[in-house]
Amino acid sequence: MSPILIEVLRGNALESRHAGALAIVDASGAVHTALGDIDRPIFPRSAVKLLQALPLVASGAAEAFQLTDEELALACASHSGEPQHVATAAGVLARLGLDETALECGTQWPAREPVLRGMLARGELATALHNNCSGKHSGFVCVACLMARQVGTDPAAFARGYVAANHPVMREVSAALSAATGVDVEHAQRGIDGCSIPTFALPLRSLALAFARAGTGQGLSDANARAARRLREAVARAPFMVGGTDRFDTRVMQTLGERLFCKIGAEGVYCAALPELGLGVALKVDDGAARAAEAAMAAVAQALLKTEDDVPDLLQGYSHLVLCNWRGTEVGALRPAEALNRALSPR
Amino acid sequence: MSPILIEVLRGNALESRHAGALAIVDASGAVHTALGDIDRPIFPRSAVKLLQALPLVASGAAEAFQLTDEELALACASHSGEPQHVATAAGVLARLGLDETALECGTQWPAREPVLRGMLARGELATALHNNCSGKHSGFVCVACLMARQVGTDPAAFARGYVAANHPVMREVSAALSAATGVDVEHAQRGIDGCSIPTFALPLRSLALAFARAGTGQGLSDANARAARRLREAVARAPFMVGGTDRFDTRVMQTLGERLFCKIGAEGVYCAALPELGLGVALKVDDGAARAAEAAMAAVAQALLKTEDDVPDLLQGYSHLVLCNWRGTEVGALRPAEALNRALSPR
Repeated sequence: MSPILIEVLRGNALESRHAGALAIVDASGAVHTALGDIDRPIFPRSAVKLLQALPLVASGAAEAFQLTDEELALACASHSGEPQHVATAAGVLARLGLDETALECGTQWPAREPVLRGMLARGELATALHNNCSGKHSGFVCVACLMARQVGTDPAAFARGYVAANHPVMREVSAALSAATGVDVEHAQRGIDGCSIPTFALPLRSLALAFARAGTGQGLSDANARAARRLREAVARAPFMVGGTDRFDTRVMQTLGERLFCKIGAEGVYCAALPELGLGVALKVDDGAARAAEAAMAAVAQALLKTEDDVPDLLQGYSHLVLCNWRGTEVGALRPAEALNRALSPR
Repeated sequence: MSPILIEVLRGNALESRHAGALAIVDASGAVHTALGDIDRPIFPRSAVKLLQALPLVASGAAEAFQLTDEELALACASHSGEPQHVATAAGVLARLGLDETALECGTQWPAREPVLRGMLARGELATALHNNCSGKHSGFVCVACLMARQVGTDPAAFARGYVAANHPVMREVSAALSAATGVDVEHAQRGIDGCSIPTFALPLRSLALAFARAGTGQGLSDANARAARRLREAVARAPFMVGGTDRFDTRVMQTLGERLFCKIGAEGVYCAALPELGLGVALKVDDGAARAAEAAMAAVAQALLKTEDDVPDLLQGYSHLVLCNWRGTEVGALRPAEALNRALSPR
C-alpha cells in the first residue's frame, strides 16, 4: 500500500484521503526523495508532453515552420480550450496548409466553464482544436510535414494515422521518451491515451530522472538537450498556453518562470523540472484524483523552493486548498498528509 | 490502510486503484460482510437522505401537504436538475405558499449536461430549485410549515434558518438519524454539507444498520418504520425523481423496484437497503471517488442478488464500467478488486 499524500478535511474531521508515491531525482539518477514505491510503472499520460514534444524541436520542424513561443508552449499543453489556445493551434495547422481535420485527438468541449457557456449560448460546436491536446497534436503534424517534405511526399497523406505507435512520427516520440527516461518503452506496458496516442507505463523514478535531465540537459543528446531548453523557455515565456485561466500550471509558471516547469497528467500524475536545483519530480496519486496531484505538486514546490519569498502564498493556496459549498460557505480543506510533510522536510 | 475495492485498468495494465471499506449488516446488527475498518466514522453526506426524510413522513407533514410519490422520492434525491425535478420541487413549495427563496441549499447548475446546455443556450440562470438537494430541502420546509401551523406562527418566518443544527426542523432530522443508526449524532464529529445542513461522521457499521432497519422496519419506532416504508415505496414508484436520466440509482431502482433502495453520497459514499434479505449496506471509498463507489455498489448488489436473471447485465455494466477516450476508442475499464470479490463471494 502507498502512503497517504493528501488529506481532505470537512470541518476538523478527516473526510477523504489520497495515497500515492513521489520520486525526486537528480540528473545522475541519485534519489533526493522517495515516498512509496517509485519503481512501480505508472502511466504518465499528459505529464510527459514536454518529452513528447522534443522531436518537434530536435527534428528541426519547429524551426522549419517558424513556431513561436506560444506555439511551442501549446505543444506541451493540456489547455482549457480557450480562444487563444484554439486560434494558436489553428494557426500552426494553417501554416502547414492544413486545418483541424488533420488532428486525430478527437473532439472535446473546453474545460474552461465560461468559454463552454459562451459557445453553447452561441450555438457553436466543439472541434478537435478545442481538445486539450490540440497543441501537442499540431506539433506531431508539424513533424509529419517535415518528414513528408524530406521524402518528397504529400504532407496530409503522410501525416494520416500519426497516432499509431508504428507511424514514423510516433516512433520518434517514443524514442525521445525512451532516451529521456532511460527505459526502452517498447518493453513497457502500453495503453491508449485520452487523445489516442500510446501511453507507456514507466516507473516514477525514471520519469523524475527524465525531468531532471530535461531541466539540466545532462544525460540527453545535444539535440534533445537543446530542444528541452527551447521548450522550457517557450513555456516560461508563454505559460498561459500550457494550461489557461486559473490553471495551476499556468499560474505557477507565470510566477516562477524557468525556475519550475510542471505539468499535470490525467489520473493523478504530475511531473516537474527544477533546473536551478538539478532535480526532476514525478508523482502519482493512486486513485487518479487531480485535486490531490495538484496539492501534492504544490507541496513539493513549496518545500524545494522554500527559501524564496515570492511564491509561498500561491503554492500554499493549492497545497491547502479551501473547499466551499454551494452557498459559498467554507466547509473544509485539503492538506499534505504527515507522510508527505515528513518526506519533504529538510534533512 | 483500507483494502482496494475497485481497480482502474488502461489496456491490460492497472492505472489507478480505489481503497475503501464496506459494511453489510442485518437489522439486529449482525455483520454479514465487513471489509476494511467499519468502525471508523465517515461523513455519509447525501447517502442518508432517506433517513433525513423520515420526519417529513413521521411528523405528518407529507400527509398534511398531500405529497405524491414523486415529491417524496424527490425528498430522498440527489437529482440531476432536470425539468421534472425542478418543477416537482417548485410544486411542493407553491402548495406551501412559498417559492425557491425559501430554500437554503444554494444555487447549483444541473448535473445533466444536455439540460445545462439547453439552459445556457436559452440564457437561463440556475436557481436553488436546480440544486441536487432541492427536493430534500423542500421536504425540510414542509416540516417547518407543519410545525409553524401547530404553533400558530408564520410559516416562512418559522422556516427561515432551517439548515442550522439547532433549528427545530434540523433537530428532528438529527434525531431520526440518531434513532436509525443507534448513534447519538450530538456526540459525533460534525461538518457542513454541500447543501449547508450538518453532516455527522458515523461508522459504516451504524449506517448499514440504519439501512437494514429502514428496509425491514425492525428496530425503528412505528412512526419511523412506516415512514421508511412509505419513502421506499415512493422511490420504487418514481425512481426517476431520486436521480435522473442515466443515473445509476434511477436505473437500478427502475429495474429492481423495492428489492433494492440505494443512494449515493458525495466523497465516495453509498448506502443501500435490501429488504428481502433484511440487509443494509454502507460503503466509503477513501479517496472520495464517485466512480469507485458506484462500481462497488453495483458489485455488492450483483453479489447479494446473484440468483436473479434480470439484473446482472445492468449491474455488470457499472461494476465493470468500460472507459472510452475522446475519439470513442475503448481504452480501459473499472473492475472490482480481489479483496472486494473475496469479501462478496458466497461462504
